[in-house]
Amino acid sequence: MAFGEFDLIETYFTHRLPQRDDVTVGIGDDGAVASVPEKSDLVVVTDTMVQGVHFDQDTPARAIGHKIVAVNLSDLAAMGAEPAWISLALTLPEINDEWLTGFAHGLREICEYYNCQLIGGDTTQGPLSITVTAHGFVPNGKAIRRSGAKPGDWLYVSGTLGDAGLALAARQHRQKLNPDYERRLTERLYFPSARVALGQSLRGIASSAIDVSDGLLADVGHILKASHVGARISVDELPLSLAVTESLSAEQAITYALTSGDDYELLFTVPEAQRGLFDTVTAHSPSKPVCIGRITNEPELVQLRFGDEAWELPEGLAGFEHFRKTELSQ
Amino acid sequence: MAFGEFDLIETYFTHRLPQRDDVTVGIGDDGAVASVPEKSDLVVVTDTMVQGVHFDQDTPARAIGHKIVAVNLSDLAAMGAEPAWISLALTLPEINDEWLTGFAHGLREICEYYNCQLIGGDTTQGPLSITVTAHGFVPNGKAIRRSGAKPGDWLYVSGTLGDAGLALAARQHRQKLNPDYERRLTERLYFPSARVALGQSLRGIASSAIDVSDGLLADVGHILKASHVGARISVDELPLSLAVTESLSAEQAITYALTSGDDYELLFTVPEAQRGLFDTVTAHSPSKPVCIGRITNEPELVQLRFGDEAWELPEGLAGFEHFRKTELSQ
Repeated sequence: MAFGEFDLIETYFTHRLPQRDDVTVGIGDDGAVASVPEKSDLVVVTDTMVQGVHFDQDTPARAIGHKIVAVNLSDLAAMGAEPAWISLALTLPEINDEWLTGFAHGLREICEYYNCQLIGGDTTQGPLSITVTAHGFVPNGKAIRRSGAKPGDWLYVSGTLGDAGLALAARQHRQKLNPDYERRLTERLYFPSARVALGQSLRGIASSAIDVSDGLLADVGHILKASHVGARISVDELPLSLAVTESLSAEQAITYALTSGDDYELLFTVPEAQRGLFDTVTAHSPSKPVCIGRITNEPELVQLRFGDEAWELPEGLAGFEHFRKTELSQ
Repeated sequence: MAFGEFDLIETYFTHRLPQRDDVTVGIGDDGAVASVPEKSDLVVVTDTMVQGVHFDQDTPARAIGHKIVAVNLSDLAAMGAEPAWISLALTLPEINDEWLTGFAHGLREICEYYNCQLIGGDTTQGPLSITVTAHGFVPNGKAIRRSGAKPGDWLYVSGTLGDAGLALAARQHRQKLNPDYERRLTERLYFPSARVALGQSLRGIASSAIDVSDGLLADVGHILKASHVGARISVDELPLSLAVTESLSAEQAITYALTSGDDYELLFTVPEAQRGLFDTVTAHSPSKPVCIGRITNEPELVQLRFGDEAWELPEGLAGFEHFRKTELSQ
């Protein structure tokens, strides 16, 4: 009932994709066979993107191919894992050569960059939807979890926040952009980076980590819940791009940085005793993380500060957390 | 943009599911962390089911939950692998408590039976679609492939063929059933078994294997293509259930057995030198495989025989192979 699985995969996905030595059987059998290095744990992550929910009809196929891999590698990065293999489940309304060529191109580029092999999957007919399961390795016991943050740990985030959210809002005509930055912002939305090298360098240093996919406040919330701690965040320390600050008021920019998703930066905590090592390891990181706050002992409480003052989300978004919860339990 | 991932998974999928010792981090972090046993290879398989393609609106949610795991475990079985973990990507139009309860029930039953742990996944909003990636183990180098069949090897299939296809045809009012067998056939369609124990017992014995998901002729074709061999099949030896023989003419029954899919039996080849061992190992198998033919040296040629005579698919299905190829390359 799968349509054209073999022809389709052979045509679009088997050429010029990385071939790794640890894969014995790749695409074309009932399953793939691969080996995990000695003294390593396997890390497995899964993300789905659905047309109309995660992207619209105008999104270039190449961007979709890139992003479905990037969001998975971002999850691997948040665990401190080195990417190795992906499985692709591709559901398509029809076999459209132009779309498939673009999608495979985007997928191949990022797989080549990270030496990640496509080891199998499934192709079926139906409404456009893509699921990738990605596999990576960490040395035994070295995976970074959400649950290790302790009061006093420092809270860091990589790159800049709010870019992808602003690009999306502009595409949906909810927000005007400074036109000088339109292209850069669209790149951030369509071709997010996964902080793979940074994630691996945080092993043994970060006490907890997560990637910023739902928005900083939502994702910091996941760390706080898993670690039974709170956080104080200095909103004036949030890393913002010129594209964001030149398009928005300060309050709007901070709001985007706190609440919009899809940036795929790493958010993590570093104990005081690891800070020197951390600074050394990340000194030359291209997406150099900045310290935006500190972990407190008040479970799940987030305090926002601007300098010495309390800071609140603007009216209408003050209920952001509540809105999210309502949405979640619908 | 995933909706309610945490609440939803915690509510429906974390209770009463198997917890394995080889899983260090399960559901609730960015990824799962698990370990593969020493001297074992990892086997990874992926299957998607889409509403309107693989099942209809009337299919019970419990059956869908069972089947999406069963079809994946069937792929693992065809590789000779022992199931270990699954990841679940669930795309739902809405959060429907009754549906989710039924789905989780079906998924849990089969996971419990095979001691298979749900280690993670993704939940998103969209047209109903489910992708499972399943992970299993085989001793190093012992995975059974499609490509190992040699001329002279015997061709075997487990269980009975055509049951699921007949059940589907009856549900779609394309075929009348003997009512005494309706329930049994519907069970075969909705709750297929995965031949997990049989698959593992074939390691080191079978020269090639595949599971019958697309239909015997299509799936034997995959073995022949991968192994560069042909096959002679005795259609009068095809294993048929009473449900099939009591509902259909002999010609119809053979046609269903050859062309209808979804039976999830194992189709495999055994070299002459392994036949004694094979008979010993499978003597008490509940889905005892039967020999239905032999591998020849004529690449991709399938000869169908009834006794000593050539046998052909009935008019209209004679172009079955061609139809499939056209469909695949559309």
